[in-house]
Amino acid sequence: MDSPIENYLRRIHAEIAGMKDGHPYSAIPAMANVDPDHFGIALATADGYVYEVGDTREEFSIQSISKPFTYGLALSDLGMDAVDEKVDVEPSGDSFNEISLAEGTGRPANAMINAGALTATSLVKGSGGRSRFKRILDTYSAFAGRSLDVSERIYASELKSGHRNTALAYLLRSFGIIESDPKPIIEDYFRQCSVLVNARDLALMAATLANGGRHPLSGDEVLDLFSVERVLSVMTTCGMYDDAGSWISNVGMPAKSGVAGGILAVLPGQVGLAVYSPPLDEHGNSVRGVAVSQRLSSDLGLHFVRAARTGRSAIRAIYDITATPSGIRRTDEAAEILAGHGHRVQVIELNGDLLFAGAESMVRALSDLPDEVEIVVADLRSVDEVSDVAIRLIAEAEDMLRRDGRELALVDVEGSVTDALQELGRDTASFTTRSAAVEWCENRLLEGHGSELVLPASINPADSPALSPLRPEEAGLLQDMMEERTYDDGDVVRRVGQRFGGVFFIVSGHITTSMPGPDGSRVKLATLGPGMTFGEMAMGEDKRQETTVKASGPLKVMVLTADSIDELAAKDPILSMNLWKALTQDAYTRVEQYLREAAVRIHD
Amino acid sequence: MDSPIENYLRRIHAEIAGMKDGHPYSAIPAMANVDPDHFGIALATADGYVYEVGDTREEFSIQSISKPFTYGLALSDLGMDAVDEKVDVEPSGDSFNEISLAEGTGRPANAMINAGALTATSLVKGSGGRSRFKRILDTYSAFAGRSLDVSERIYASELKSGHRNTALAYLLRSFGIIESDPKPIIEDYFRQCSVLVNARDLALMAATLANGGRHPLSGDEVLDLFSVERVLSVMTTCGMYDDAGSWISNVGMPAKSGVAGGILAVLPGQVGLAVYSPPLDEHGNSVRGVAVSQRLSSDLGLHFVRAARTGRSAIRAIYDITATPSGIRRTDEAAEILAGHGHRVQVIELNGDLLFAGAESMVRALSDLPDEVEIVVADLRSVDEVSDVAIRLIAEAEDMLRRDGRELALVDVEGSVTDALQELGRDTASFTTRSAAVEWCENRLLEGHGSELVLPASINPADSPALSPLRPEEAGLLQDMMEERTYDDGDVVRRVGQRFGGVFFIVSGHITTSMPGPDGSRVKLATLGPGMTFGEMAMGEDKRQETTVKASGPLKVMVLTADSIDELAAKDPILSMNLWKALTQDAYTRVEQYLREAAVRIHD
Repeated sequence: MDSPIENYLRRIHAEIAGMKDGHPYSAIPAMANVDPDHFGIALATADGYVYEVGDTREEFSIQSISKPFTYGLALSDLGMDAVDEKVDVEPSGDSFNEISLAEGTGRPANAMINAGALTATSLVKGSGGRSRFKRILDTYSAFAGRSLDVSERIYASELKSGHRNTALAYLLRSFGIIESDPKPIIEDYFRQCSVLVNARDLALMAATLANGGRHPLSGDEVLDLFSVERVLSVMTTCGMYDDAGSWISNVGMPAKSGVAGGILAVLPGQVGLAVYSPPLDEHGNSVRGVAVSQRLSSDLGLHFVRAARTGRSAIRAIYDITATPSGIRRTDEAAEILAGHGHRVQVIELNGDLLFAGAESMVRALSDLPDEVEIVVADLRSVDEVSDVAIRLIAEAEDMLRRDGRELALVDVEGSVTDALQELGRDTASFTTRSAAVEWCENRLLEGHGSELVLPASINPADSPALSPLRPEEAGLLQDMMEERTYDDGDVVRRVGQRFGGVFFIVSGHITTSMPGPDGSRVKLATLGPGMTFGEMAMGEDKRQETTVKASGPLKVMVLTADSIDELAAKDPILSMNLWKALTQDAYTRVEQYLREAAVRIHD
Repeated sequence: MDSPIENYLRRIHAEIAGMKDGHPYSAIPAMANVDPDHFGIALATADGYVYEVGDTREEFSIQSISKPFTYGLALSDLGMDAVDEKVDVEPSGDSFNEISLAEGTGRPANAMINAGALTATSLVKGSGGRSRFKRILDTYSAFAGRSLDVSERIYASELKSGHRNTALAYLLRSFGIIESDPKPIIEDYFRQCSVLVNARDLALMAATLANGGRHPLSGDEVLDLFSVERVLSVMTTCGMYDDAGSWISNVGMPAKSGVAGGILAVLPGQVGLAVYSPPLDEHGNSVRGVAVSQRLSSDLGLHFVRAARTGRSAIRAIYDITATPSGIRRTDEAAEILAGHGHRVQVIELNGDLLFAGAESMVRALSDLPDEVEIVVADLRSVDEVSDVAIRLIAEAEDMLRRDGRELALVDVEGSVTDALQELGRDTASFTTRSAAVEWCENRLLEGHGSELVLPASINPADSPALSPLRPEEAGLLQDMMEERTYDDGDVVRRVGQRFGGVFFIVSGHITTSMPGPDGSRVKLATLGPGMTFGEMAMGEDKRQETTVKASGPLKVMVLTADSIDELAAKDPILSMNLWKALTQDAYTRVEQYLREAAVRIHD
């Protein structure tokens, strides 16, 4: 199928190709003979997919679009303070070749004008056997995701005509802003302006900035997040020369343009945009490039204000566990205790990103809990990104809960939040499934509000909840028919695809169940303990075991085998009927359980 | 429990209270006697919760923080183009009281400096019996969420000392930028600067901007989104006077300060921050205000680049329906057709926000579908916000699917995406549950790949999948024991909490099931059709109906009542046993179904 986004870009390209205003840059002879009709649009997503329309593989010199990348390299080499001493971050409101040095100190207003860019180049030093320029070129290449080259023809031409930049460099040297011989710095600066890129390269360079400094395809961290933040900040106020204000109003993306006709724009977290079209407006920006950027920003909602999440609460649901218990079958006494005390365990189900706002709403909910709540389960299964500040807030919230004599438990499938909390010295209870977390909470409630007998280490099958609808003597008869089996930690008791092999009653120990997910990877489902049953699910339509069951620690089970169930039907139809009736009740208890969970989930 | 965020703010407040630099504004006598130790921090979330530390209820004059709000009112009154003609959007790089008028035209550089703000005030006109100033004051009050007043003392003092602003207004009049008598405009401008606010007010005003112009507590749309976008854009480059570049680098939030010591900052979509502390730095910004803003931005990750979602894919899972069918019981022939053709239906499960980037990844997945796919189900249950551009992309993607002879179906619980698509003239198939959507897809497959007999309009209970494990003569005997009942559209067949009343077999027509969600509201669960059963779930542990069942259109059912099931146990234990066995199998088929769905869900 065609992509509607590609179609849209084709439409915009055709429309804007009709704009014939402006003239290509002519001050450098080697750049004067460019075809003014060349016109390419490339849009790269933060995961590295590139939409391309028109002349996106046509090469041209990067020119001033080099400035943010060299500035980024200097920032990551020296740190922010050392760079700030040499180059300020204030918009000059001037055009690209204005001098804009601070009175007295000679400090350039920012790194997006020539004076600041020359200074940034001077701050990059050769290292590890690589010259300054090799390091600059390698950085640009890493941003683009391919090896870039210099146009020697353009370089030679720049060097010959670049009197103003040469003057600037010597002026900066006179102020001590540039601290060494200006000549090699000027040469490297002209070389960096002469690096050949195409619109696709620029879109991926922009997408790397959008992606927090990590190239979406190579996966390499090309620039640290702090430097990315700074580079994008300076691009926001200084990237489009004296057009910065109207750019941020009408386009709303940090951007940089070059006199060869390139424009690069970044929507943090989302996309990188690049346009190539040589004719320039009076500010030195590509006429079609500006038009495309404005059009896409408005049509696709790329303005940074519009693209911001409009603070939906990160909390999807808050409920106590009386409505959705773990589903573990309990003795009557235990069930009664849980029914009376289940409201002491609250589940907070979160979704979306836990940046400050999301973490704040979670922590606020924790602060507002009724006094009787003893345990809180934070269900993180639907959470995407968890920021550092969210981790710190969760850690502090846990400390506060503890001081109040309360506990926090996480449902954290990948374990990344648990690990991050551990690094902060917290040993937060964490589970990979909701039901495991709730089971743990229930056991806590039983310990706190029940007698010691409520959580026995071993349960006879005859006393298990599954057989509770039967009369005691019936349950006893069934228990007498069972086979005892024992397993060691990690043993596979039942495997996906096995035929129905009977109903397994856990006497002591625990098992875990898992099944393959849609892509074949293993998904952990539940942990079951004494008194609980498994294997009966294979009585479903295809008569095959749906889950793999493993012993978790030493395990003792009693099995009502498939054969003995068949024999019973002939031998004692009444008992057999009552067994099936009990199993039906048990099965529907579970269906109800799933339904209740689904109702919580569906509800938003 | 204490809030860790409040604790954190208290810590920051105590720390920064020690900063004693700067002096309160003294040019206006009525403002000179302020206590320099007053210091309040208020942080308001986009849903209207306000954290307050220190002197957040201390009133002071709003001064220049009025500028973005009057500018916003002018924008929403006249539209962007008319306002742009009078006031530009470029940073001036100058301090707040610089003249900064364009050569020749006299157009002020932006609306955050005095010349631009006077012009913005002049653009607001009285209307509907309210004077210009009444409209301005009402706007500020709506942003704050309470009735604000003017300090007549400060107003009088401003009017007396405001020679420079008076000069500016007459200069603007001479250029024709201000088009009427400057005197009442100057008075209204001084009045607007003299409006009394406290830090809590400013935080809520900022949160209203963060929330796209809608006050988070009153719910009123105070300013349209386009004007909010423009106001925040101009605040980004021009809000902090000649300190704009370092502000955006170090704080990264659109902001505005006033000489009375207030600062307001906005993180779009997330929070509004306000600080009040009178001593000012050399730029005219509150010393403690700047320090708090920098500190919070860095500690809480509020910089707009950092706060951007780092483009996780919006796609949670893609799978075909062979692994997770609707769970509807089918004839053997139908089941075979579905097993062979289920891969022609793909489910794309999405989560997070569908802004451009999210919608793009969905549309890209649609473009990449294998040729044999005939229907796509977009499961939107975990999606938060859906932007306009996402709606347009989905509409275009649907057109493309249609042109390829494919269909799109939505799982859209609230129906908002479906409604928006309908406004664009699309009649997209939409369902409130996944299983209803999948059932519809299965029926489509059966129509396309099976014979007409595969989807009969009525099914005898004896032929239903639930009784399929029984021999035909057994199923026939059971059918003979059943009672026939008919219902009209909307009739309640079973109600939550009713005792087990038997097993209901749908002969013709459809029913819907629903249950109360955790907050008591009704959650729709499923739609069932001919051959399917209900009522049996009440055989679960508490013997009560868990769902409410309603007829959807004319309905005919056959009921194996609870009484007849009891009688059967005595009369024919073997048949009774086989019935229970069939019901157990049926129940576990459903448990398996839920487990498979859970495995898809848990897997990320």
